[in-house]
Amino acid sequence: MFVAVNYITCREDYRERFEELFRSRAGAIDEMPGFVRMQVLRPRDNGGKTDRSAYLVVSEWDSEADFKRWTKSEAFEKGHRRGFDDVKAARERGEAAPMKSEFVTYDVITR
Amino acid sequence: MFVAVNYITCREDYRERFEELFRSRAGAIDEMPGFVRMQVLRPRDNGGKTDRSAYLVVSEWDSEADFKRWTKSEAFEKGHRRGFDDVKAARERGEAAPMKSEFVTYDVITR
Repeated sequence: MFVAVNYITCREDYRERFEELFRSRAGAIDEMPGFVRMQVLRPRDNGGKTDRSAYLVVSEWDSEADFKRWTKSEAFEKGHRRGFDDVKAARERGEAAPMKSEFVTYDVITR
Repeated sequence: MFVAVNYITCREDYRERFEELFRSRAGAIDEMPGFVRMQVLRPRDNGGKTDRSAYLVVSEWDSEADFKRWTKSEAFEKGHRRGFDDVKAARERGEAAPMKSEFVTYDVITR
Protein backbone atom coordinates (compact mmCIF):
# COMPACT_ATOMS: atom_id res chain seq x y z
CA MET A 1 0.00 0.00 0.00
CA PHE A 2 1.26 3.37 -1.07
CA VAL A 3 0.17 6.88 -0.07
CA ALA A 4 0.82 10.22 -1.76
CA VAL A 5 0.26 13.43 0.17
CA ASN A 6 0.00 16.65 -1.76
CA TYR A 7 0.77 19.49 0.68
CA ILE A 8 -1.03 22.56 -0.61
CA THR A 9 -0.37 25.98 0.80
CA CYS A 10 -3.05 28.50 -0.19
CA ARG A 11 -3.16 32.24 -0.21
CA GLU A 12 -5.80 33.28 2.32
CA ASP A 13 -8.04 34.80 -0.36
CA TYR A 14 -7.88 31.62 -2.43
CA ARG A 15 -9.00 29.11 0.20
CA GLU A 16 -12.70 29.27 -0.65
CA ARG A 17 -12.01 28.75 -4.35
CA PHE A 18 -9.55 25.96 -3.56
CA GLU A 19 -12.11 24.07 -1.50
CA GLU A 20 -14.76 24.60 -4.16
CA LEU A 21 -12.46 23.07 -6.79
CA PHE A 22 -12.31 19.89 -4.73
CA ARG A 23 -16.00 19.82 -3.84
CA SER A 24 -16.87 19.98 -7.53
CA ARG A 25 -14.09 17.70 -8.70
CA ALA A 26 -14.62 15.63 -11.82
CA GLY A 27 -13.77 12.39 -10.03
CA ALA A 28 -11.53 11.22 -12.87
CA ILE A 29 -8.98 9.85 -10.38
CA ASP A 30 -11.56 7.41 -8.99
CA GLU A 31 -11.49 5.42 -12.22
CA MET A 32 -7.71 4.94 -12.29
CA PRO A 33 -6.41 1.37 -11.86
CA GLY A 34 -4.97 0.81 -8.39
CA PHE A 35 -6.74 3.84 -6.89
CA VAL A 36 -7.99 3.10 -3.37
CA ARG A 37 -9.34 6.40 -2.03
CA MET A 38 -8.64 10.07 -1.47
CA GLN A 39 -9.36 12.63 1.22
CA VAL A 40 -8.90 16.39 1.35
CA LEU A 41 -7.95 17.57 4.84
CA ARG A 42 -8.31 21.15 6.05
CA PRO A 43 -6.06 22.02 9.00
CA ARG A 44 -7.72 23.35 12.10
CA ASP A 45 -6.07 26.13 14.02
CA ASN A 46 -3.10 24.49 15.66
CA GLY A 47 -1.34 27.47 17.09
CA GLY A 48 -0.53 28.91 13.69
CA LYS A 49 2.65 26.95 13.01
CA THR A 50 3.11 27.85 9.38
CA ASP A 51 4.99 24.73 8.39
CA ARG A 52 1.94 22.63 9.26
CA SER A 53 -0.72 24.93 7.85
CA ALA A 54 -1.05 23.20 4.47
CA TYR A 55 -4.11 21.38 3.25
CA LEU A 56 -3.38 17.69 2.75
CA VAL A 57 -4.69 15.93 -0.33
CA VAL A 58 -4.14 12.30 0.54
CA SER A 59 -4.47 9.60 -2.10
CA GLU A 60 -4.00 5.89 -1.49
CA TRP A 61 -2.89 3.42 -4.15
CA ASP A 62 -2.16 -0.27 -4.47
CA SER A 63 1.37 0.58 -5.62
CA GLU A 64 3.70 3.42 -6.55
CA ALA A 65 3.41 2.39 -10.20
CA ASP A 66 -0.35 3.06 -10.08
CA PHE A 67 0.28 6.51 -8.58
CA LYS A 68 2.89 7.36 -11.22
CA ARG A 69 0.61 6.21 -14.00
CA TRP A 70 -2.01 8.64 -12.68
CA THR A 71 0.38 11.61 -12.57
CA LYS A 72 1.07 11.05 -16.27
CA SER A 73 -2.54 10.46 -17.26
CA GLU A 74 -5.22 12.52 -18.89
CA ALA A 75 -7.22 12.14 -15.66
CA PHE A 76 -4.48 14.01 -13.77
CA GLU A 77 -4.41 16.81 -16.32
CA LYS A 78 -8.19 16.98 -16.32
CA GLY A 79 -8.43 16.92 -12.52
CA HIS A 80 -5.95 19.77 -12.11
CA ARG A 81 -6.86 21.93 -15.08
CA ARG A 82 -8.89 24.59 -13.25
CA GLY A 83 -6.23 24.92 -10.55
CA PHE A 84 -3.42 25.09 -13.09
CA ASP A 85 -5.37 27.77 -14.99
CA ASP A 86 -5.76 29.85 -11.81
CA VAL A 87 -2.01 29.71 -11.18
CA LYS A 88 -1.25 30.61 -14.77
CA ALA A 89 -3.70 33.53 -14.76
CA ALA A 90 -2.20 34.93 -11.54
CA ARG A 91 1.28 34.78 -13.05
CA GLU A 92 0.08 36.57 -16.17
CA ARG A 93 -1.27 39.34 -13.95
CA GLY A 94 2.13 39.53 -12.26
CA GLU A 95 0.74 38.16 -8.98
CA ALA A 96 2.09 35.43 -6.72
CA ALA A 97 0.65 31.96 -7.36
CA PRO A 98 -2.51 31.50 -5.25
CA MET A 99 -1.31 28.08 -4.09
CA LYS A 100 1.79 25.97 -3.91
CA SER A 101 1.80 22.22 -4.10
CA GLU A 102 4.34 19.64 -2.99
CA PHE A 103 3.93 15.89 -3.35
CA VAL A 104 5.51 13.63 -0.74
CA THR A 105 5.18 9.86 -1.07
CA TYR A 106 4.95 7.29 1.71
CA ASP A 107 4.97 3.59 2.40
CA VAL A 108 2.33 2.33 4.83
CA ILE A 109 4.38 0.53 7.44
CA THR A 110 1.56 -0.49 9.73
CA ARG A 111 -2.11 -0.09 10.43
CA MET B 1 -15.19 12.91 10.00
CA PHE B 2 -12.08 14.05 11.80
CA VAL B 3 -8.40 13.25 11.24
CA ALA B 4 -5.42 13.72 13.54
CA VAL B 5 -1.92 13.57 12.11
CA ASN B 6 0.98 13.07 14.48
CA TYR B 7 4.12 14.33 12.72
CA ILE B 8 7.04 12.41 14.19
CA THR B 9 10.61 13.40 13.48
CA CYS B 10 13.08 10.67 14.43
CA ARG B 11 16.76 10.66 15.05
CA GLU B 12 18.34 8.50 12.36
CA ASP B 13 19.53 5.89 14.84
CA TYR B 14 16.05 5.62 16.37
CA ARG B 15 14.07 4.87 13.20
CA GLU B 16 14.29 1.10 13.46
CA ARG B 17 13.15 1.13 17.07
CA PHE B 18 10.38 3.62 16.24
CA GLU B 19 9.00 1.39 13.50
CA GLU B 20 9.25 -1.65 15.75
CA LEU B 21 7.19 0.12 18.43
CA PHE B 22 4.36 0.52 15.91
CA ARG B 23 4.64 -2.95 14.43
CA SER B 24 4.26 -4.43 17.90
CA ARG B 25 1.67 -1.95 19.11
CA ALA B 26 -0.84 -3.05 21.71
CA GLY B 27 -3.80 -2.01 19.58
CA ALA B 28 -5.51 -0.31 22.50
CA ILE B 29 -6.60 2.60 20.28
CA ASP B 30 -8.64 0.22 18.10
CA GLU B 31 -11.12 -0.31 20.93
CA MET B 32 -11.81 3.39 21.52
CA PRO B 33 -15.35 4.64 20.72
CA GLY B 34 -15.40 6.62 17.50
CA PHE B 35 -12.10 5.21 16.26
CA VAL B 36 -12.19 4.54 12.51
CA ARG B 37 -8.66 3.54 11.53
CA MET B 38 -5.00 4.43 11.71
CA GLN B 39 -1.98 4.24 9.40
CA VAL B 40 1.71 4.82 9.99
CA LEU B 41 3.38 6.37 6.94
CA ARG B 42 7.12 6.33 6.31
CA PRO B 43 8.33 9.07 3.94
CA ARG B 44 10.22 7.99 0.88
CA ASP B 45 13.18 10.01 -0.26
CA ASN B 46 11.66 13.18 -1.66
CA GLY B 47 14.73 15.24 -2.27
CA GLY B 48 15.56 15.54 1.41
CA LYS B 49 13.31 18.48 2.26
CA THR B 50 13.61 18.33 6.02
CA ASP B 51 10.27 19.90 6.79
CA ARG B 52 8.53 16.98 5.08
CA SER B 53 10.71 14.19 6.40
CA ALA B 54 8.49 13.28 9.34
CA TYR B 55 6.67 9.99 9.73
CA LEU B 56 2.90 10.52 9.73
CA VAL B 57 0.75 8.68 12.21
CA VAL B 58 -2.73 9.26 10.85
CA SER B 59 -5.78 8.42 12.91
CA GLU B 60 -9.38 8.88 11.78
CA TRP B 61 -12.28 9.46 14.13
CA ASP B 62 -16.01 10.01 13.96
CA SER B 63 -15.55 13.32 15.79
CA GLU B 64 -13.03 15.54 17.53
CA ALA B 65 -14.62 14.61 20.86
CA ASP B 66 -13.73 10.95 20.26
CA PHE B 67 -10.14 11.91 19.46
CA LYS B 68 -9.85 14.07 22.59
CA ARG B 69 -11.30 11.32 24.74
CA TRP B 70 -8.56 9.03 23.45
CA THR B 71 -5.74 11.50 24.22
CA LYS B 72 -6.91 11.54 27.84
CA SER B 73 -7.47 7.80 28.10
CA GLU B 74 -5.54 4.94 29.62
CA ALA B 75 -5.29 3.49 26.09
CA PHE B 76 -3.31 6.57 25.01
CA GLU B 77 -0.95 6.29 27.96
CA LYS B 78 -0.57 2.56 27.38
CA GLY B 79 -0.03 2.95 23.64
CA HIS B 80 2.71 5.54 24.10
CA ARG B 81 4.43 4.20 27.21
CA ARG B 82 7.46 2.59 25.53
CA GLY B 83 8.08 5.68 23.41
CA PHE B 84 7.67 8.03 26.37
CA ASP B 85 10.11 5.85 28.34
CA ASP B 86 12.69 6.07 25.53
CA VAL B 87 12.44 9.87 25.50
CA LYS B 88 12.72 10.04 29.28
CA ALA B 89 15.73 7.72 29.35
CA ALA B 90 17.54 9.77 26.69
CA ARG B 91 16.95 12.94 28.71
CA GLU B 92 18.27 11.28 31.85
CA ARG B 93 21.44 10.42 29.95
CA GLY B 94 21.70 14.05 28.87
CA GLU B 95 20.95 13.21 25.24
CA ALA B 96 18.56 14.82 22.78
CA ALA B 97 15.13 13.21 22.59
CA PRO B 98 15.19 10.43 19.95
CA MET B 99 11.95 11.70 18.45
CA LYS B 100 9.73 14.75 18.42
CA SER B 101 6.00 14.62 17.98
CA GLU B 102 3.49 17.23 16.88
CA PHE B 103 -0.25 16.66 16.52
CA VAL B 104 -2.15 18.59 13.87
CA THR B 105 -5.90 18.11 13.50
CA TYR B 106 -7.97 18.27 10.32
CA ASP B 107 -11.51 18.30 9.04
CA VAL B 108 -12.21 16.08 6.06
CA ILE B 109 -13.69 18.47 3.53
CA THR B 110 -14.17 16.05 0.69
CA ARG B 111 -13.45 12.56 -0.54
